[in-house]
Amino acid sequence: MNVLVVGSMAFDSIETPHGRADRVLGGSAAYFALAAAFFAPARIVGVVGEDFPDEHLTALSRSGVDLEGLQRAPGKTFYWHGRYHEDLNVRDTLEVQLNVLEEFVPRLPAGYEDTEYAFLGNMHPAAQLEVLSRLKQPRLVALDTMDHWIHETPEELRKVLERVETVVINDSEARMLSGQQNIVRAARAILKMGPRAVLIKRGEYGVFQFSDAATFVVPAYPLEEVLDPTGAGDSFAGGFMGCLAAADAGSGDALRRAIVYGNVTASFTVEDFGPRRLIALDRTEIDERYRRFVDLTRFHD
Amino acid sequence: MNVLVVGSMAFDSIETPHGRADRVLGGSAAYFALAAAFFAPARIVGVVGEDFPDEHLTALSRSGVDLEGLQRAPGKTFYWHGRYHEDLNVRDTLEVQLNVLEEFVPRLPAGYEDTEYAFLGNMHPAAQLEVLSRLKQPRLVALDTMDHWIHETPEELRKVLERVETVVINDSEARMLSGQQNIVRAARAILKMGPRAVLIKRGEYGVFQFSDAATFVVPAYPLEEVLDPTGAGDSFAGGFMGCLAAADAGSGDALRRAIVYGNVTASFTVEDFGPRRLIALDRTEIDERYRRFVDLTRFHD
Repeated sequence: MNVLVVGSMAFDSIETPHGRADRVLGGSAAYFALAAAFFAPARIVGVVGEDFPDEHLTALSRSGVDLEGLQRAPGKTFYWHGRYHEDLNVRDTLEVQLNVLEEFVPRLPAGYEDTEYAFLGNMHPAAQLEVLSRLKQPRLVALDTMDHWIHETPEELRKVLERVETVVINDSEARMLSGQQNIVRAARAILKMGPRAVLIKRGEYGVFQFSDAATFVVPAYPLEEVLDPTGAGDSFAGGFMGCLAAADAGSGDALRRAIVYGNVTASFTVEDFGPRRLIALDRTEIDERYRRFVDLTRFHD
Repeated sequence: MNVLVVGSMAFDSIETPHGRADRVLGGSAAYFALAAAFFAPARIVGVVGEDFPDEHLTALSRSGVDLEGLQRAPGKTFYWHGRYHEDLNVRDTLEVQLNVLEEFVPRLPAGYEDTEYAFLGNMHPAAQLEVLSRLKQPRLVALDTMDHWIHETPEELRKVLERVETVVINDSEARMLSGQQNIVRAARAILKMGPRAVLIKRGEYGVFQFSDAATFVVPAYPLEEVLDPTGAGDSFAGGFMGCLAAADAGSGDALRRAIVYGNVTASFTVEDFGPRRLIALDRTEIDERYRRFVDLTRFHD
């Protein structure tokens, strides 16, 4: 099965206590698709500017990402500049230039309309809804969002939430969206908005999955060296959705395995700046680390 | 096998966003022993003042805690008053009265010297060392500490660290003790100080265990209602050590099972103010929640 992401493509300038990287490939769609493509054919709907270099397109294509849905618009690519604190869970945004993203209207190529697994990356909920309405027979649609849309476009966001299967969101956003401090209550409140499952990303602490059917809680893969957390959440979502698409299943054992694969894929992303590690990665490394993760977390009852 | 704790006995006044409790039973030794006693015979070495009521002693005895090592000294019992933030991971200490704890010199009854499993609760490292030196043939000695001793008595702390098997410590203290921000590096640095294993308590995010032999990472039991986090870490340590003592084993599967049992025991503590839930708890509830935890975390590889 195919997996589609609609989301941002960006240049990122990143500063962490361990170094910096200037104008590297970034954006939720880029990280998602690179991660998903390890498991299933991945498709991007997004936009870049005239300044977007061919080398990035080549890197994505070589990784197995279909770029037919990637628009090139007059103007410059979306730009983000951020700095992480000593505690890498905290970051400051130093500069944002929306550029071509400001006028972006997602358009699905005809060949994408039959996509079974779709991820509506963090963007205006009206744009998410537009993509959703174009999908003919989706098996599973997941959504990400952020504080900006929660505060500025709550009505539109509610409409998308009513129509998606799964929400993939980080813990502070889950609290904001639900108005609940406790993470279990937050997840329960989000379920009432429509989705059948909520996945809460907790950064270095792992993932909490909640649905009427089951709860699953899993720690992150412990790493001795985290150079740059950028893209970890999107890599998680990509690995997760790619794995679901490959199994063509969205519940039970397959769901849990997909969450762990997403977790493990994201653990590579943060080992280098930008998507460098993800681009150099091969599937056997992911499978090896998955087995190592089983050893790290297994206990006998 | 028996399990011994040397640590504080206290009156706690606790304020959380969910309510308050005044002058309830508290202290690391109380929480530890109540938790440990579900699994193995538990012994306390500690001190209370003349104001300490019989009802608390009765509650401890009824829970299976031996109090021969509990001294009663002239003066008042150690008192702590704290307030938790909306984010329950953060708390402010509003008042501390050391009282009888100030002059406390731990004394082991002769019958305690053969204790196999001992926990040196958070206190002056010289007092921890004194207890350690009195144990004739300990199988496993674990230690807790806090920022105060890390900063004020680093030399003495180093001496105890050289002689204990295991350190049980929370994440911010692990960072402080090691000077490392990354939790894996922090654990590795602490191992170099002498212990063969480090257990890092991460509050609502679970536990990270690190040794030369193996790494184990496990999430906390997700709770919908946390009324009062006080004593969670000591309950974890008590459940963990009690379980090790019951199995008379300190590695491999038994170690991991003990960590999960500690985890599960602590999850009850925080469901009510002070040690109320822990005192009302019975072992079948712990076993039930253990099985539920297996379901919550299991995935098939």
